[in-house]
Amino acid sequence: MREAFHEQLEDLFADLAAISREVENAVHYATNALLDGDATTAEQVISADSQIDMAAEKVENDAITMLSLQQPVAGDLRKLVAALRMVSELERMGDLSVHVAKIARLRVPDVAVPESERPTLAAMGRIAKEMVGAVTRVIATRDVEEAKELEAMDDEMDRLRRQTFTEVLSGSWTHGVEPAVDIALLGRYYERIADHAVTVANRVVFIVTGEQPES
Amino acid sequence: MREAFHEQLEDLFADLAAISREVENAVHYATNALLDGDATTAEQVISADSQIDMAAEKVENDAITMLSLQQPVAGDLRKLVAALRMVSELERMGDLSVHVAKIARLRVPDVAVPESERPTLAAMGRIAKEMVGAVTRVIATRDVEEAKELEAMDDEMDRLRRQTFTEVLSGSWTHGVEPAVDIALLGRYYERIADHAVTVANRVVFIVTGEQPES
Repeated sequence: MREAFHEQLEDLFADLAAISREVENAVHYATNALLDGDATTAEQVISADSQIDMAAEKVENDAITMLSLQQPVAGDLRKLVAALRMVSELERMGDLSVHVAKIARLRVPDVAVPESERPTLAAMGRIAKEMVGAVTRVIATRDVEEAKELEAMDDEMDRLRRQTFTEVLSGSWTHGVEPAVDIALLGRYYERIADHAVTVANRVVFIVTGEQPES
Repeated sequence: MREAFHEQLEDLFADLAAISREVENAVHYATNALLDGDATTAEQVISADSQIDMAAEKVENDAITMLSLQQPVAGDLRKLVAALRMVSELERMGDLSVHVAKIARLRVPDVAVPESERPTLAAMGRIAKEMVGAVTRVIATRDVEEAKELEAMDDEMDRLRRQTFTEVLSGSWTHGVEPAVDIALLGRYYERIADHAVTVANRVVFIVTGEQPES
């Protein structure tokens, strides 16, 4: 019984890692769609989100079933509760990728982001993707050191977001209101993906060490 | 033992309702600070958030302790898991109120929202506050009918947010980029408060009926 439980727990974390990998794809392709003004890729990100949602629902149901049937305590309970929370964060990260893809789609055949801002948005997209990639590995390996590296990446994301504000609100902004609004919202979406990534990584740290880093 | 458990569960939901009441205040005062350009009120909302966070942490710890010590099943387990999720949503709603207050503070001594947009933002703030008020009552009373009313309020919030986009992106917008960016982000924050309110209400419906409404 106890061994079967631990196998189920491993399966649950493998499912979480698989969802994280799907989110990584969503972030990657949403950024591509955004920077290329590519409606087809944007549509794919939007429609693929239902698979993330279904996979998340399965993890939730499995975790609750395990809570109910196995009544775990101590570390095992902590892992199950953490899994329930991590899956909500991952599901939100998928939604946020969809928001990025929807802004891309809205502006087709134009590109939402003016050329001068594309390097900054590309960097935000790349860091977001790298952070989700790190989350996938951290879930799979429970590597506390890699989990802690997410904080520095999140700082870089915050710096890039401040940079977009500086550029958009400077006197020399010539692109008008619409791209400014798009960039403000895109910055918010990428920042939230990064925040959720840090939270998921910190939950793994909590599982391993019993201590919750500040998030 | 079982009766003590149900008393603890009632206490847990009373704590959730108390947090929801604090969030209602946060939304209310953040909107006041925003529309009046009132830095003192904005500061109060920002500093009061740590109390919401502490109260949320207590609920989380209590719920996990109850899971661990009492090992509930079926409906009782469902309630505890729902409480764990609801408290995360409420905590986020508090954070979003802080985001509104921070935009208010950033623009003092000016008012972030141009006069022509204040009625729309005031309406968003009022609906957000009413939704959180409804959530407080729904948590306390488990009134499924009132919970279902949140959806219509959320539709009204979405309509108001679309209206701000129409106004900000129209050719006749004369206020420049900065207020447009502020309004886009404020709209996002209020919309998210409303979304979380619907999710919390739906979790109460799930507890009572065993069925999860679409959220």
